[in-house]
Parts: sequence; structure tokens; C-alpha cells
Amino acid sequence: MLVHHLYSGGKDSSLAAWMLTRLGYDVELVTVTFGLLDNWRFAKETAERLGFEHRVLKLPAEVLERAMEMAINDGHPNNAIQLIHERALEALASFPEVERVSDGTRRDDRVPFLDLPKARSLEDRFNVAYIRPLLGIGYKTIRELTERLFIVEIRESEELQKADYEAELRLLLRENGIDPLEIFPKRHHQSRVLGWKSL
Amino acid sequence: MLVHHLYSGGKDSSLAAWMLTRLGYDVELVTVTFGLLDNWRFAKETAERLGFEHRVLKLPAEVLERAMEMAINDGHPNNAIQLIHERALEALASFPEVERVSDGTRRDDRVPFLDLPKARSLEDRFNVAYIRPLLGIGYKTIRELTERLFIVEIRESEELQKADYEAELRLLLRENGIDPLEIFPKRHHQSRVLGWKSL
Repeated sequence: MLVHHLYSGGKDSSLAAWMLTRLGYDVELVTVTFGLLDNWRFAKETAERLGFEHRVLKLPAEVLERAMEMAINDGHPNNAIQLIHERALEALASFPEVERVSDGTRRDDRVPFLDLPKARSLEDRFNVAYIRPLLGIGYKTIRELTERLFIVEIRESEELQKADYEAELRLLLRENGIDPLEIFPKRHHQSRVLGWKSL
Repeated sequence: MLVHHLYSGGKDSSLAAWMLTRLGYDVELVTVTFGLLDNWRFAKETAERLGFEHRVLKLPAEVLERAMEMAINDGHPNNAIQLIHERALEALASFPEVERVSDGTRRDDRVPFLDLPKARSLEDRFNVAYIRPLLGIGYKTIRELTERLFIVEIRESEELQKADYEAELRLLLRENGIDPLEIFPKRHHQSRVLGWKSL
């Protein structure tokens, strides 16, 4: 039972990947890129430290461009991040060999998040199961499990250290003469998973 | 890390209990009763077959009476089932030793279901973590895991074979001269977990 799991290298998607293995699934981690940056390497490195299979999925640049336009129009990145995440899930689910897709989206996050109709639509259109291990738990439980499992490094925000969608979106904004700080909220620190606490 | 898990003896709450153990939690199963029937014994029996600790939690009869009134007024049992489930979670969460409460509610079920504000309110009011292992998975994944794990008996509906809220609500309706068939949708079969497929 193989699950293809969207993976940024962060705590949430690492925890979700671990949960999948505990349920008996084989897990292949998949990191999305638009080819502007090679920040997917951070996710690959963390995947290797954790002992997971990893691959990179390239999405078309048009998706990032459309996301950028949404972010500029909205003045905040929520809809842009949501769009990229939905396209990433669809791209992954559209591979013929993919039967189960998964991600690390949380109960308490506003974006990215697929509501019930969207989740069912993804499953129906691509004939996959969509699994979100973190959906049934809150921040307390996420913290409890994360602290038990992972060695985590917390540092001042350095966007390129993480393989999330934000880094390439920020870069494209800058390339189009827009200061990402006008659109993204300030983040004071970022965390990165360095390895298992014990194996 | 002990979780108190609301348990009916059915497939969903059994699967959720298994998932909790796989995440490293100790699990105590808790079956709710109003004291009208002893159908909690079915849940206790299944809990024993699966090797879980089990206890019974008695809720005040007023909750069932209010649920009955709602079901009569509504002409369907959804709000009544929702009320009982919320009161059950609150009763469980209010024990001083309880730090984590859990249930087998599903992503695809309309009731019982706590939306995000209600889930957070439960956690905040009682200072507990609320864990729903099935929330992040759909019917395909539930079926896949259930078939792998459990020996299940499916038979024509016999309401008293299950320790869900419905049996006592039906009884109270009958005692008040109301035919439960006017309120509950017809179910053609019920399933019961008999044990592990392999241990």
C-alpha cells in the first residue's frame, strides 16, 4: 500500500509521513518545484535523514504565475498558496500509478486546505484516496508527537532553507518588482527537521 | 500518553482505537450509557476481544430526554445524536485525569461531528486534546484498513447488538408512544467487529 505524500521537509509534513508509516503504508515523499529555485533539496535532504524515498515533481510555471497574480490582487498570499496546493495534489494524483495521495495539512490551518467537497472531488476525479493524517489532531497533539519524534532546529526566518511554495512565489514577486514583504506576513522563526530523536 | 476514546464496538471506533495505539498512545475505551439498556456490554465484549481497557460512562437521563424531544420535533435523529455526542465528549473531558479525548467520527459523516470552533471550544473549556483519527481519511481508506485488520460480521439490522446512542434513543421513543421508524432512516445491515484478523 503505497502513499505519495506531498513533502516540504517541515515538521508537519514529516509528522504526517511518520503517521502514514505507522498505519502500515509505504510512503514516497514528493516535493513540488516550479524550477525557479532548487530549494527542494532541503526537503530531499530531510527525507534522506528520515529514511524515506523522495522524488521531485515539477509543476508548470503558469501555475506559479497565476498564483502570483492572485497574491498581488488579494494583497495576501492565501489564495495563491491554496491554488498551488490544489494543483500539486492534482498533478500528483494524475499519475496512473498513484492510488493514494497525502499531505501534512492541519486542522487549524486556513490554507492550504481542501474542504469536504473539494477533497471528495479530488478523490473522484482522479480515483485516488486522499489522506490527511494531521486533520484529526490539534496543535497540542502535533506538538506532543513532534517533540517525541524529531530533532528540530529553530532559527530566524531564512526562506530558502525550506522547500515550501512560498520561496518560489516570493522570488517571482521580486522578479516582477514587488516586495514580498508587502504580501506575506512577517514570520519570526522557521523550524527544520534534522532527524529522528531515536530510531 | 493515555487517550480516553469514545467507543461503540463498531468498525469506525475500533479502527480509530487501533490508529491511536499505532501513534504510541495508551488507549482506554469508554462506552456511554444512559442506564436504560445494557447494550454497552457489546462494546465491552469487543473491547476485550481486541485487548483494550474498557469502562462505561453513565450520562444523565435528562440528556437522552432532551435528545428525544429534538428528534421528535425535527422528525429525524441528526440533532439528537449530535447533542448526545457532544455531551458524551464533555462528560469524558471533564474528569480531572483525562488529558486526551478521542472518537471515531468520520470525515464523510454529517453527525455526529464537531466543526472547528466546537472542537477548539471542547479543547479550551476542558483543557484537553481532542483527537479524531478518522477525520483525515475517506471511506476508501477506512475500508482498506478495516478489511486488513478486523474480522467483521455483517448481519441484518438488530439494533441491540450495538452499543451506539441509537438503541437507547429508540427505546425511549417507544416508551413515549412514538415509533422510531418514523424518525430513524431504515438501515439494512449492521456490522460488528469480532476480533483481529491477525495479531
